[in-house]
Amino acid sequence: MSIGIFDSGIGGLTVFKEVAENFPKADIYYLGDTARVPYGNKSKETIIRYSIECATYLYHNFNVDVLIIACNTASSYALDTLKKILPIPVIGVVKPGAQVAVRYTKNKKVGVIGTVATIRSGSYQQELKQLNPDLEIHQKPCPLFVPLVEEGWIDNEIAKLTVKEYLQELIDKGIDTLILGCTHYPLLKNTIKELYPHINIVDSSIAIVEYINNLKLDLNGNGKRHILITDESHAFDNFRKLLIGDAKTEKIELSDLCSL
Amino acid sequence: MSIGIFDSGIGGLTVFKEVAENFPKADIYYLGDTARVPYGNKSKETIIRYSIECATYLYHNFNVDVLIIACNTASSYALDTLKKILPIPVIGVVKPGAQVAVRYTKNKKVGVIGTVATIRSGSYQQELKQLNPDLEIHQKPCPLFVPLVEEGWIDNEIAKLTVKEYLQELIDKGIDTLILGCTHYPLLKNTIKELYPHINIVDSSIAIVEYINNLKLDLNGNGKRHILITDESHAFDNFRKLLIGDAKTEKIELSDLCSL
Repeated sequence: MSIGIFDSGIGGLTVFKEVAENFPKADIYYLGDTARVPYGNKSKETIIRYSIECATYLYHNFNVDVLIIACNTASSYALDTLKKILPIPVIGVVKPGAQVAVRYTKNKKVGVIGTVATIRSGSYQQELKQLNPDLEIHQKPCPLFVPLVEEGWIDNEIAKLTVKEYLQELIDKGIDTLILGCTHYPLLKNTIKELYPHINIVDSSIAIVEYINNLKLDLNGNGKRHILITDESHAFDNFRKLLIGDAKTEKIELSDLCSL
Repeated sequence: MSIGIFDSGIGGLTVFKEVAENFPKADIYYLGDTARVPYGNKSKETIIRYSIECATYLYHNFNVDVLIIACNTASSYALDTLKKILPIPVIGVVKPGAQVAVRYTKNKKVGVIGTVATIRSGSYQQELKQLNPDLEIHQKPCPLFVPLVEEGWIDNEIAKLTVKEYLQELIDKGIDTLILGCTHYPLLKNTIKELYPHINIVDSSIAIVEYINNLKLDLNGNGKRHILITDESHAFDNFRKLLIGDAKTEKIELSDLCSL
């Protein structure tokens, strides 16, 4: 059996790494749409169109049995559409993250950070409120975090100041739990922990593994690892050692996606 | 007569502003490809294809008499191709900037900063060396500058630290002149000046105006201002007041570009 993962770029490799480690026998196919990254500043219609292209590509070419949308922006806008289109389980990052946050929080004050589009979509807020209407939710878009991570500045002075600039107002509001609503952000986890050690951090990639485990799928295969990107990427090279291991990587043409 | 300006996004509005102020009677059409921004991390082939689509759109729809490529990345990779395709003068930002730098520098040590793709292209280095083979050129990609500017963080502590992190090594090499090889960077000009007051800063948007003046074109029209973007943009809204004035703005479909 095989798992498909798609992301707007390479941030979803944090999900790939976690899934690959936890399901060693599953065949795993990752598609990073690096030619059109980031989705986070695009309109809803554009995000849905791109997501359909990526998802159907993985489904048609590799017969994946389950599809993970590793991109928070795509999860926020395109999950319902993809569930309707594809005859397999489709998992976004929002629901698993929200479930873990509800379990973690003691004082019912939860912070959510992500791209401008993810926060604007209100998807975490909606999911959290459904799970517990009494939650107090504080959201904040953090557009500098992705480029910081892609530059490899995850624990220098600039990273620390930027984390403080974005997060202090959430902390001041008394949150005890923080959802990292973007797949790049787990790479800043240690810096956030160092500055705010008392906060429970929800890392979507770990939440997704737990969520898949609960689906009780038979995920035995040949342990194949295959990573596809739609364009070469400076950041991809930075992430490679950290997250990919020795998986096969391949560049595909954007026109192959668009022609579906 | 009319001027077309295209950019990968909204950074080129610094060029629009300068051109609009200096040629008040010209009709000016600006196309920002905000649906596919940034070009800076895309491959050469992708950048050329996108540039052809933007340029031919402006030429076919508005009959522009001169075309400015306000994007440094597109100027670096697509200028020659566009010059061949279009029967009008096509101006990139690289040559005008290089000419001004050569005039400014006293010690013949010039720094160039830009996106990863612009620096990797070596286009400024090539242009500068052609103008004066004796120049000592030091280059540095600064990928954090665009998101900083788009966040509006142009003079806070994080902006200052980031400027120092990127520029100090160029300063240590003794440059007396610095080319801002990205249209977003002029918005960081004051912070750079404050930290390094002895450095001559070359702002491409000002260099382009000078270059157009030297072409002695008849640019009298009706003073029309028309801005087109391919997707809504958070950053566009931030820039609006600062750079656009009361120009007409319109969102166009990406498919209109791609179908040409």
